[in-house]
Amino acid sequence: MKKFLILASLALISSAVKAQTYLNPQAPIEERVKDALKRMTTEEKIKILHAQSKFTSAGVPRLGIRQLNMDDGPHGVREELEWNTWSPAKWTNDYIVAFPSLTCLAATWNRDLSNAYGNAVSEEFAFRGKDIMLGPGVNIQRTPMNGRAFEYMGEDPYLAGEIVVPYIKAAQKNGIACCLKHFVLNDQEIDRFSVNVNVSERALHEIYLYPFKQAVERAHVWTIMGSYNLWEGDHCCHNDKLINGILKKDWNWDGALVSDWGGTTNTMQAIYGGLDIEMGTYTDGKLRESAFGYDDYYLAKPFRELVNDGKVPMSVLDEKAARVLRTIFRTAMNPNKVIGNQCSEAHYDVCRQIAEEGIVLLKNESSLLPLELSKYKKILVVGENATRSLTQGGGSSELKTLRDISPLEALRTQLSNINSQLSIDYAPGYASGRAMYDHEDKVDPAKQEALKQEALEKAKNADLIIYIGGLNKNHKQDCENGDRESYDLSFGQNELISALAEFDAPMIVTNFGGNPYHMPWLNKVEGLLHCWYLGSESGTALANVLTGKVNPSGKLPVTFAKNYEDYPYVKYGQEAYPGITGVETPKNSAGEMARRQVYYKEDIFVGYRGFEKNKTKPLFPFGFGLSYTTFKYSKPAITKDAEGWKLTIDVTNTGTREGKETVQLYVGQAKVAATRPIKELKNFTKLSLKPGETKTATFRITEKDLMTWDEQTHNWKYEPTKFMAYIGASSNEIKSKISF
Amino acid sequence: MKKFLILASLALISSAVKAQTYLNPQAPIEERVKDALKRMTTEEKIKILHAQSKFTSAGVPRLGIRQLNMDDGPHGVREELEWNTWSPAKWTNDYIVAFPSLTCLAATWNRDLSNAYGNAVSEEFAFRGKDIMLGPGVNIQRTPMNGRAFEYMGEDPYLAGEIVVPYIKAAQKNGIACCLKHFVLNDQEIDRFSVNVNVSERALHEIYLYPFKQAVERAHVWTIMGSYNLWEGDHCCHNDKLINGILKKDWNWDGALVSDWGGTTNTMQAIYGGLDIEMGTYTDGKLRESAFGYDDYYLAKPFRELVNDGKVPMSVLDEKAARVLRTIFRTAMNPNKVIGNQCSEAHYDVCRQIAEEGIVLLKNESSLLPLELSKYKKILVVGENATRSLTQGGGSSELKTLRDISPLEALRTQLSNINSQLSIDYAPGYASGRAMYDHEDKVDPAKQEALKQEALEKAKNADLIIYIGGLNKNHKQDCENGDRESYDLSFGQNELISALAEFDAPMIVTNFGGNPYHMPWLNKVEGLLHCWYLGSESGTALANVLTGKVNPSGKLPVTFAKNYEDYPYVKYGQEAYPGITGVETPKNSAGEMARRQVYYKEDIFVGYRGFEKNKTKPLFPFGFGLSYTTFKYSKPAITKDAEGWKLTIDVTNTGTREGKETVQLYVGQAKVAATRPIKELKNFTKLSLKPGETKTATFRITEKDLMTWDEQTHNWKYEPTKFMAYIGASSNEIKSKISF
Repeated sequence: MKKFLILASLALISSAVKAQTYLNPQAPIEERVKDALKRMTTEEKIKILHAQSKFTSAGVPRLGIRQLNMDDGPHGVREELEWNTWSPAKWTNDYIVAFPSLTCLAATWNRDLSNAYGNAVSEEFAFRGKDIMLGPGVNIQRTPMNGRAFEYMGEDPYLAGEIVVPYIKAAQKNGIACCLKHFVLNDQEIDRFSVNVNVSERALHEIYLYPFKQAVERAHVWTIMGSYNLWEGDHCCHNDKLINGILKKDWNWDGALVSDWGGTTNTMQAIYGGLDIEMGTYTDGKLRESAFGYDDYYLAKPFRELVNDGKVPMSVLDEKAARVLRTIFRTAMNPNKVIGNQCSEAHYDVCRQIAEEGIVLLKNESSLLPLELSKYKKILVVGENATRSLTQGGGSSELKTLRDISPLEALRTQLSNINSQLSIDYAPGYASGRAMYDHEDKVDPAKQEALKQEALEKAKNADLIIYIGGLNKNHKQDCENGDRESYDLSFGQNELISALAEFDAPMIVTNFGGNPYHMPWLNKVEGLLHCWYLGSESGTALANVLTGKVNPSGKLPVTFAKNYEDYPYVKYGQEAYPGITGVETPKNSAGEMARRQVYYKEDIFVGYRGFEKNKTKPLFPFGFGLSYTTFKYSKPAITKDAEGWKLTIDVTNTGTREGKETVQLYVGQAKVAATRPIKELKNFTKLSLKPGETKTATFRITEKDLMTWDEQTHNWKYEPTKFMAYIGASSNEIKSKISF
Repeated sequence: MKKFLILASLALISSAVKAQTYLNPQAPIEERVKDALKRMTTEEKIKILHAQSKFTSAGVPRLGIRQLNMDDGPHGVREELEWNTWSPAKWTNDYIVAFPSLTCLAATWNRDLSNAYGNAVSEEFAFRGKDIMLGPGVNIQRTPMNGRAFEYMGEDPYLAGEIVVPYIKAAQKNGIACCLKHFVLNDQEIDRFSVNVNVSERALHEIYLYPFKQAVERAHVWTIMGSYNLWEGDHCCHNDKLINGILKKDWNWDGALVSDWGGTTNTMQAIYGGLDIEMGTYTDGKLRESAFGYDDYYLAKPFRELVNDGKVPMSVLDEKAARVLRTIFRTAMNPNKVIGNQCSEAHYDVCRQIAEEGIVLLKNESSLLPLELSKYKKILVVGENATRSLTQGGGSSELKTLRDISPLEALRTQLSNINSQLSIDYAPGYASGRAMYDHEDKVDPAKQEALKQEALEKAKNADLIIYIGGLNKNHKQDCENGDRESYDLSFGQNELISALAEFDAPMIVTNFGGNPYHMPWLNKVEGLLHCWYLGSESGTALANVLTGKVNPSGKLPVTFAKNYEDYPYVKYGQEAYPGITGVETPKNSAGEMARRQVYYKEDIFVGYRGFEKNKTKPLFPFGFGLSYTTFKYSKPAITKDAEGWKLTIDVTNTGTREGKETVQLYVGQAKVAATRPIKELKNFTKLSLKPGETKTATFRITEKDLMTWDEQTHNWKYEPTKFMAYIGASSNEIKSKISF
């Protein structure tokens, strides 16, 4: 949908010039900021630095400077809450499109879809009257236990950086600020408010900061959310070295740092640690929730008094206020901010396309898929996620949808349309609801057994079984404020799948989830799809892939290990995850000592970097994903010019269906030093190919791409050596390599 | 404050032209409406015709068409309420400026201040994210009992029309629609939902419709609110003859008719009776408040089903939807809508100026005012309104103020600034609060007596008494949904004032209120000011007048009768007010018969028209108000040209203070027919004059000004005859007359 900028006649420009600069949308933002600051009282400057409600920070009403309306994020606009509580405000105009989870977006390996996502979701934010969307998230998926991994973009910093940049650019073009989160090292939910992360400087820069840096330098992200956890003993919401040192000074970032809700813990640290907008303090039930003491916030009265008493210079206050004003002028008072829309078919289209391209086909024995529906008479669908809404749950990313198409609903419609003789039966097979729990809050085995037996009974007569399960975006099953407790699927799903697989009928397993999981039944099933969380069009997208209306093209943004122990950090024990308590450390400037210490002992060897270094064979490697067609890679060619290297390779669709292939470029040293990964993703391109068609993938490599972080000089460094370029269909399926 | 229109570069116009017409702010509104209608489903068209919450009606989210955010009105922006209830939403960003009541604005007789009011209040509506302000109100003040009279603009249709037009123009220039109310004949609160008004066609047009017509024809008001009461047996929210016939056809009005909250009673009448937006149904406790059944609204599901069943043609739905879309494009999607601001000093200035110019000096014996403060040692302030907030109460116009300066507070500050030796004491003298009522819900005489005695005791030592009382914007004391029960001041104020006046100390009475009242103590007090309701700057404005910082210039927009019986309608008994029950009438098309009938037997002889016809001497006549200076009127001159007559008169300030005088032009027949008023206000101008300065007031009179409504032809008619022009300082103080 084309957007209009709001225009008016030229005759008005001259009168505009005469009026206050800060209100003049034609004036440069820095001049508007300076002019506004001059007119504001100390109290007004303080007020814009902290929440005035659960999800807004104040403007300056007297001066006509708008407030900032924020909302979760990142998969759609959260429903309206009451001003002072976490209770829904019961509005009826806040039904929105639930977009697929960001893990799914990363699995598309499609920058254009990221652009479309950012555009569509920000149009919904704009129509809902919002200025800042709390997202996207680019924390690195270090462990498959992480309860919020589904909100992020996988294990690879390059992939996350490439996917997040178009999203932010598109959203901010619409006048909606992204609030990139969680800066940084918020890689587990266990003790998230009190875990101090110990990580090498190199891993910090090469792995964990990398996607944030891309967002800052290439997408000019307007706001960033500090994380709950600590780094070097200080909370990341007001960590001088991290925010002032790295983000604002080294990266030259001019945006506003927003605390995570309740992530601020100290006034002096908040003042001098780089925080600009304090949100959600006292909202986690710890303190005076009922008092709604916004003026008691660390950056409110205590800060105001320090300034008024001359104990903190006005320049410190002005610097923060300037960052907030800049954000207001960029969003709430941006003349190019769009009107947007909500639940348009265009948005559902984007939602469905991302879902379709994010679904990863992991196994397809005897080309069972796409389904030849004329072959079947009785299809049995099993699994709770066939009917359970996965737009609900998960914490702050939960959404109030107008449309939420379940897999069973979509399958019933689509399969009957194709073969009206088909009987489609359903059995949940297991259940996660409260009804399944006994009085000790444990799942009642008898109840689960009954559901399982019902499914097995029905399976006897089926000639195809489609299993739809996985994780379920609920507590300790991909949900904020709690990590998973096991690498296994819950609620007896492993046993259920194994038992169903014993029948003669072929079986397709379709799992939702933001994390990998144990698959002891893998050899027994014919088909396997991993689906992430797909949003409003979940069922339609899945049915389109199963029926072949869409040829799957998703590739894993995260390594699926065979066993939990295979993950690189696991061998380092509790220290590496989820950390240990009782470690005595020096107290920080706020007199505080972290409750828990976690040590990222695998260093930069996260995900496939670790699997490859450790020579651990993954179950499904990073970058892996099948298609209903086949692709042939030619020999690559590499040339060098003044700007670096240019690598080209032809890819041909050798099958009979149109399909998309993500061609991946990894680079490593030709002779790999122990301190470097064998190879790292450095580029990718997604080609759409008709049967028989050939296209050329072209990749540029510069010295910058080959740099590593030097802990001696505290900077990026390029060491000339012989490199190897690996071109593959996944990190493990290298089609050819070429040195340069 | 200069406002910016939002501009963008010309380069974008070409792309704009290519996009959807309805989203193009450059396209003519009628084309946008037509284009939007084409794209909307029947369900979407229906949805925009009724409430989706207490104060919003739906947009079309799918198409990016914004909803309409409405709010009371008319004296400032009402606080935010919960989506589905009348409970405050407890927001903290909704503190606003309380502007003076509209009766006060009318008392300024100042069109420029009306323009400033409309501009300022609409800037607050804009900053609060509103699109429609529910106001102003121009119901004619037929009776001093009317609980909502304070929300209107007095007894004279010409004055109301002149004052309302600049207000609406200024507000709508800012992109905020006025919702002019209550259309029409909503002149009492007793049985307001079920009283049928019987009025002559001539009185309807000449008196009651006249200000609405001005607002439609000269200010092009975008929305109008239908009234609760009935006319000719049908509710005015969906009265075919009134809305379709007079408003939409005869007046050629293209706006949207909004029901008063709960004023819709029947689907077929709503469909065919001209209603466009149904609000507040089921919100008056009658029906299913708890069900929030917006789809059960008369214009929701029942209308949709009739359209879908082909029983109501689509053209009827389209016509309504077009009016609502037009309103959306004029307001919520108006590219020139301002950002606005809230509680700026500029707004408080407007608020204070209107208050200062609206206060009417009614008596000033021995030039007691302005106060010569050096003469006094001990001033006693008596009366509850010296401290009681009058921005509270009154019904829907109640406001949540950031600033609310009480008279006592302002007097203490200002008087001590001038004479620091002054002792200022205070005694409430009476109280209206719940504490004063006994268990039978009657005011406890003993409690009132104690307060009175305290005041009298203190009065013994005072050398000046300033009484601050009057009505109090509470139930049956100027408040929605109830009329006054007596023409007397309540809570024993008459006795209190009389007793205080017995002391030697001079006494100034300062009464707040939206209505006239009995003043048996008038001869005993030296000074008298009537103050209406003055809003946030109430105390400052009053103190400025008392101390002479401001020279009062307000003139009564309503006749103050000596006795209640003097009001023109009273001699016609209960039938004329508040009407009678038990009258059998034919049922209307909805099978309904009005519970109460009221007969406007005084016909066009409302207010001073009636007093003059009946030769009843008012206590204070319409248009009356004193100044601290004196004015001399010269002899007028009248000339005739092609366009009509031009009358000029010089006015000189003959006193020693700068002051403002409202020069009033009344016209009547030279030989007055029994069917015509002796004279009627036809123009006025407010002159600001320095001591000794002379200015010329110029009035144009056209044949249109001399027309009356002809019940034979159902149209306005000009009957050539000899007319008399009366130029005066009030309706009773005619300085000279001249025939033409």
